[in-house]
Amino acid sequence: MEIVRTFADARALGSGRVGLVPTMGYLHEGHISLVDAARRECDTVTVSLFVNPLQFGPTEDLASYPRDPDRDAEMVAAAGADILFAPPLAEMYPTEMLTAVSVADVTEGMEGGLRPGHFDGVATVVAKLFAGLVPDRAYFGRKDAQQLVTVRRMATDLSFPTVIVGEPIVRESDGLALSSRNIYLDPAERTAARSISRGIMAVAGAVLEGKRSGAELELIAAAPVNEEPGIDLDYATLASQDTSASMANLDRPAFLAVAARVGRTRLLDNVHIDLTDTGWTPDVGVRLDEPSILYREA
Amino acid sequence: MEIVRTFADARALGSGRVGLVPTMGYLHEGHISLVDAARRECDTVTVSLFVNPLQFGPTEDLASYPRDPDRDAEMVAAAGADILFAPPLAEMYPTEMLTAVSVADVTEGMEGGLRPGHFDGVATVVAKLFAGLVPDRAYFGRKDAQQLVTVRRMATDLSFPTVIVGEPIVRESDGLALSSRNIYLDPAERTAARSISRGIMAVAGAVLEGKRSGAELELIAAAPVNEEPGIDLDYATLASQDTSASMANLDRPAFLAVAARVGRTRLLDNVHIDLTDTGWTPDVGVRLDEPSILYREA
Repeated sequence: MEIVRTFADARALGSGRVGLVPTMGYLHEGHISLVDAARRECDTVTVSLFVNPLQFGPTEDLASYPRDPDRDAEMVAAAGADILFAPPLAEMYPTEMLTAVSVADVTEGMEGGLRPGHFDGVATVVAKLFAGLVPDRAYFGRKDAQQLVTVRRMATDLSFPTVIVGEPIVRESDGLALSSRNIYLDPAERTAARSISRGIMAVAGAVLEGKRSGAELELIAAAPVNEEPGIDLDYATLASQDTSASMANLDRPAFLAVAARVGRTRLLDNVHIDLTDTGWTPDVGVRLDEPSILYREA
Repeated sequence: MEIVRTFADARALGSGRVGLVPTMGYLHEGHISLVDAARRECDTVTVSLFVNPLQFGPTEDLASYPRDPDRDAEMVAAAGADILFAPPLAEMYPTEMLTAVSVADVTEGMEGGLRPGHFDGVATVVAKLFAGLVPDRAYFGRKDAQQLVTVRRMATDLSFPTVIVGEPIVRESDGLALSSRNIYLDPAERTAARSISRGIMAVAGAVLEGKRSGAELELIAAAPVNEEPGIDLDYATLASQDTSASMANLDRPAFLAVAARVGRTRLLDNVHIDLTDTGWTPDVGVRLDEPSILYREA
């Protein structure tokens, strides 16, 4: 694996079908599942590692966002990536950034409503990665469901040839969706956080039992969080996979997204609900058998 | 030459170094000079032809903008282009356009001030062309000076690998800068319009004589327009080639841009002032010996 610092070097090393896995580093098994998917489907696998200041709000955790570039490099090399693109700030933003990419409507509710400017920052940096690396395919986790909608729409609207692939959530053995921010949680917070995935699993069950009402599914998702002390629900929303618009009934491909705060940490989770040959099919992702790398001793 | 309607077909036909000439059609010798430059420097020359609704204001001339796709195709084929990319609206905007590319600061004065939203429309459609066609080089006329600044900044900020090339203005034998909109001018308006290029030529002379004051150069540009009946000056501004910011003195590469209204037609002209081995060098463009195609009988 080559570690490169410039777009030009990363482009020059790519050949055949290029798959991109954009990350902010501090990688875990969720990211590695994206690398695995890219490895199966592409000739060149490029992982980008850049903590993007544009997508953090002024009161958010940019300065303290966890970083471990050496471990990241080992992990993506072991997963079979060809290129680790780890640009310095001066490569990404050599001059004052005057250009912004914004996506309307699909960024309005949920995370977009609670994190003003966040999705503009995401859309802009992903557009830069697509423009500068020219990937054939790009891999994102379904965990950041509204981000996936936003990136898909940006890529379509701007005529990028890049195919956007969404991959299932990876979870701890107790159900907690992997997130680099999970390391902020102390043991009590970690216990409280588990209520989120309990709600998500309950929604998956309810869908399989035939429940279709958005309000009902949202209540099922919210209940375990609302019953748990030490965690505050931001929202539980059934939303369209195409538009992020909230849905009164499950009548199009959807996700039920939950956001909650535990101490100073915001956590997201969701279940995507796809229409397959067997009807509405919940995708709750996959569970690890043992603790993720985030919970292992260094 | 192949005429194609989709990004995918245009990409598939390109090989080696790809040069793009983005146009809105109704081509004239100014456009052809861009095709010539691309032909000299690139393996594949792609001309795009699309009247982009996003860059027209609600009171502007989108519906009446001149169109002659058959003549356009003949002209670019004769000039040696390889691909004419003429997408239908459904290829450019298959779904509601939710994504916008905007460039701050450099779009604020001059045209940006008088045509709100215009440069967002330009930046968005050029980003789409760059994303979808992946050109190595793209050719724009120096006539639209602030557009050139905007496109350069957009390409840099979004990490497009595309090199932006600005080519000299092409003029009628009497000095009028070529523009598809010149066909709107009746004979009296055409006479009044000539005052613009008289001012531009006077600025070029004054620069060669050593004048450096922005205010003085702007007065020299404005005088012939202000003295002429039937034409109204919008602005005459000395501005930076990097930022479009107005300049009190000629101390960086600049352009002196003039905009004026003749009847219902807005006309633009400018002289770029480059720093070369011999000092400040005005580029007034080139003159045709005989009337441009815009003034020839069909």
